[in-house]
Amino acid sequence: MNDPRTYPLKEILPEPTLRRLPWYLAFVTLLRDRGVEYVSSTSIAKELNVDASQIAKDLSFLNIKGKTRIGYEVEGLEHELRDFLGFSDVHNAIVVGAGSLGSALMQDSGLERYGLNIVAGFDVNPDRIGRRIGSIEVFPLAKLGEVAQKLDVSVGIVTVPFEAAQTVADACMEAGISALWNFTPCRIRVIDGVVIQNTSIYSNLAIMYNRLDRLRRQ
Amino acid sequence: MNDPRTYPLKEILPEPTLRRLPWYLAFVTLLRDRGVEYVSSTSIAKELNVDASQIAKDLSFLNIKGKTRIGYEVEGLEHELRDFLGFSDVHNAIVVGAGSLGSALMQDSGLERYGLNIVAGFDVNPDRIGRRIGSIEVFPLAKLGEVAQKLDVSVGIVTVPFEAAQTVADACMEAGISALWNFTPCRIRVIDGVVIQNTSIYSNLAIMYNRLDRLRRQ
Repeated sequence: MNDPRTYPLKEILPEPTLRRLPWYLAFVTLLRDRGVEYVSSTSIAKELNVDASQIAKDLSFLNIKGKTRIGYEVEGLEHELRDFLGFSDVHNAIVVGAGSLGSALMQDSGLERYGLNIVAGFDVNPDRIGRRIGSIEVFPLAKLGEVAQKLDVSVGIVTVPFEAAQTVADACMEAGISALWNFTPCRIRVIDGVVIQNTSIYSNLAIMYNRLDRLRRQ
Repeated sequence: MNDPRTYPLKEILPEPTLRRLPWYLAFVTLLRDRGVEYVSSTSIAKELNVDASQIAKDLSFLNIKGKTRIGYEVEGLEHELRDFLGFSDVHNAIVVGAGSLGSALMQDSGLERYGLNIVAGFDVNPDRIGRRIGSIEVFPLAKLGEVAQKLDVSVGIVTVPFEAAQTVADACMEAGISALWNFTPCRIRVIDGVVIQNTSIYSNLAIMYNRLDRLRRQ
């Protein structure tokens, strides 16, 4: 984990900043690939459509200073962003529910670059149990506690149907898993000391349809 | 599309309401599967951890009235929610970038239940072109305009690497696609009359890590 002394302000980091930092990271990674050495907040602003002063403010949370008239050193900024966002750490994760979305995540090699190391899948469907998805084995749900503890899992990815979400979340918490990444529309209840992160793909669809609909009626 | 006269208030629907409606839909779908006939906002509140008065307020945007002491008719509520959210309409979509995430979405049968009908994939990688992912064919990127127009596509799902995102978005807009669902960390610029919906999986990861980190240091 990051050293708390190094990031004294992380505690009070506003969530919108935290949402923007990965955009900056993606852009500076691209610049580094292209061999660019320095980048100004103005160039980042132009590329990402974010106010330059906002970018400077967001980056002030990091241990990096831009140079006047030159900007930020690209490689240093990439490294700082990656560290700060926790993408350099390895977080062992399990996928509970190896259906279409679960299998998809197990095969998404992109996640590993963001510090998420999926070590096992779980399902109740006998057709899925024992199979490998990519290189990752699917275990019966009953083995969750045992496997999670053995493999030092900190993140449980919940991709089961709505009605099973709370039950598998409970099983994850019982196994000592401290973060749940919930892809179901179920509002999972967590105990104190457990982080819940909801990523509702279908809610995003509803918002998109609504905007599209409104636009067509203008 | 929905009839504007039927939903006069949809225009001013607050986005938090729009985010919650799919939760209600998931829950009432489950109730309907279980043969439950009526549900009160209090029961929904208890299950979903949302204030009952908030639920009543959210549902007031719909053409449905709950009955005193009985609540909402489950099947009617499900139907209304599905219609209102645009999940009953068919939105033809293409996936641009048939890598791990793109392929995953092409195989996620869940999307179809939410009105998203993926009709084609596109890629620049010769190994992927001509293949079928699930039942969906992957075409060369150069065919995007032709295929999108022939298949009456309204949604372009962008799952390419960061550096290609704006280019493929431009190609989609040129083909007359009116909504872009962007899974990349790139801030895509759109022309007037085009909807952009960002779903940043990796930003969600960063937020989760940050919360986890903070918790561990408490």
